[in-house]
Amino acid sequence: MPYVQRGGVNIYYETYGQGFPLVFLHPFSTNGYIWYFQTFSFARTNQCVVIDERGHGRSDKPQQGYAIKEMAADVIAVLDELKLNRAIFVGNSIGGMLVMQLNLDYPERVAGNVIVSSGTNLGAGMPAEAKAAFQQNAEATFGALIEGAIAAKTKRERPEILDLMKAQFAVEGNFPRYVFNAAGADPGGVFNWDITSRLKEIRKPTLVLAGEEDQATTVAANKLLADNIPGAQLRVVKEVGHFYQLEKPAEFNQELRQFINRVAA
Amino acid sequence: MPYVQRGGVNIYYETYGQGFPLVFLHPFSTNGYIWYFQTFSFARTNQCVVIDERGHGRSDKPQQGYAIKEMAADVIAVLDELKLNRAIFVGNSIGGMLVMQLNLDYPERVAGNVIVSSGTNLGAGMPAEAKAAFQQNAEATFGALIEGAIAAKTKRERPEILDLMKAQFAVEGNFPRYVFNAAGADPGGVFNWDITSRLKEIRKPTLVLAGEEDQATTVAANKLLADNIPGAQLRVVKEVGHFYQLEKPAEFNQELRQFINRVAA
Repeated sequence: MPYVQRGGVNIYYETYGQGFPLVFLHPFSTNGYIWYFQTFSFARTNQCVVIDERGHGRSDKPQQGYAIKEMAADVIAVLDELKLNRAIFVGNSIGGMLVMQLNLDYPERVAGNVIVSSGTNLGAGMPAEAKAAFQQNAEATFGALIEGAIAAKTKRERPEILDLMKAQFAVEGNFPRYVFNAAGADPGGVFNWDITSRLKEIRKPTLVLAGEEDQATTVAANKLLADNIPGAQLRVVKEVGHFYQLEKPAEFNQELRQFINRVAA
Repeated sequence: MPYVQRGGVNIYYETYGQGFPLVFLHPFSTNGYIWYFQTFSFARTNQCVVIDERGHGRSDKPQQGYAIKEMAADVIAVLDELKLNRAIFVGNSIGGMLVMQLNLDYPERVAGNVIVSSGTNLGAGMPAEAKAAFQQNAEATFGALIEGAIAAKTKRERPEILDLMKAQFAVEGNFPRYVFNAAGADPGGVFNWDITSRLKEIRKPTLVLAGEEDQATTVAANKLLADNIPGAQLRVVKEVGHFYQLEKPAEFNQELRQFINRVAA
């Protein structure tokens, strides 16, 4: 059964293929399906591990416990279960936060990092009105946020992506509203997590991929990461928003392949 | 745990949402992921059930037992487990064959059918050379087959879909070669299954969606279904191949929504 239990919480994962391990960590309110165009493609040459983070998709959804540190520990529990020593971690948005936290808490497990549209201390940039709007009508507010997070070309040519993102937020069986609230309020959770002063401790090869049209985690938010992680490379991707791996999967895969060849060769 | 066991075979399924049930059945060599752009979108209004057919993805992969009739019985086992009386069945390719078989064996469980790029007696149209080529180099032969099954526009604008389809076939953890061989050789399996003379027994509202550029299950193969299923409607979709739901998800979803409104209202 593709679950590992940690502290009473069942974490869902899937694994395909053999070779140097890649671990994929999805954005807030989504699930492991977002790596559909990576999982099987890379499983021809690598062991791909896709995890549903606690509170999401097929994993358990406790009432509390959504500190980034907790969620990163879940990832290590999956690695331990699979007896994987080291991996390249690929994380989008909150998934990128987990990647950074893994570098602080378990650096010996990390071979390299691909951080896709992420940031730290994101709540500080959020106006009080936005927080109030989320309290009043979470679904509509999230819908507006996500519209600004997807590139114009994507919305024109792949309208299903905007619809999917809104749907994943709306479907309680995937992402219950209480998880959104608990994670948002957690002092170490998605909006309050701040490792700005510790980014310099991340010492593994790191590629930061920022979508030029992403208004959720802006280019500036991603540049802050790349500027402070020693040796990190920043790539700003045109005509992409918050979800590079889904908005332009073929290009993303090429870029990820190059990174793997560099780091895991 | 999202499995139901039938005759010692664990069948993986997921379910999201409430409302009139929709059951999604994927093509040969793929898995339930292919409904990514439907599952969450429709879960806002319907109970969506996505199944990995035996031999595929997260389900068990026995050495033998790939008759369409067996695989259809697995679907009923999932419905029984979920205590679902009736559903609209949406099946692509071999998934469409399961839908037709369900109509013959369990008509009382069927509210309506959406058959996406499918057919019956498909092996009869396959030249002996093609069968020999599959024996010699399955991966390359499948690759050529799948190239002809995807629309030119899709290959140009969404090259990740061709890559994904080749990868799902190549990754043994998703679809082992012995499953391909066992299903291909089964007298009631994917290539030998022939219900041409029984299509007239299918009595539920049926929509057949054929991709105009699909060389795997041609427009003619799909027209044969629509011509022989009483009252069935055929829609030939331009610039689409074998995977309408993935090649043009937004258009597909609109069409599926209309069908649901007509049948389940």
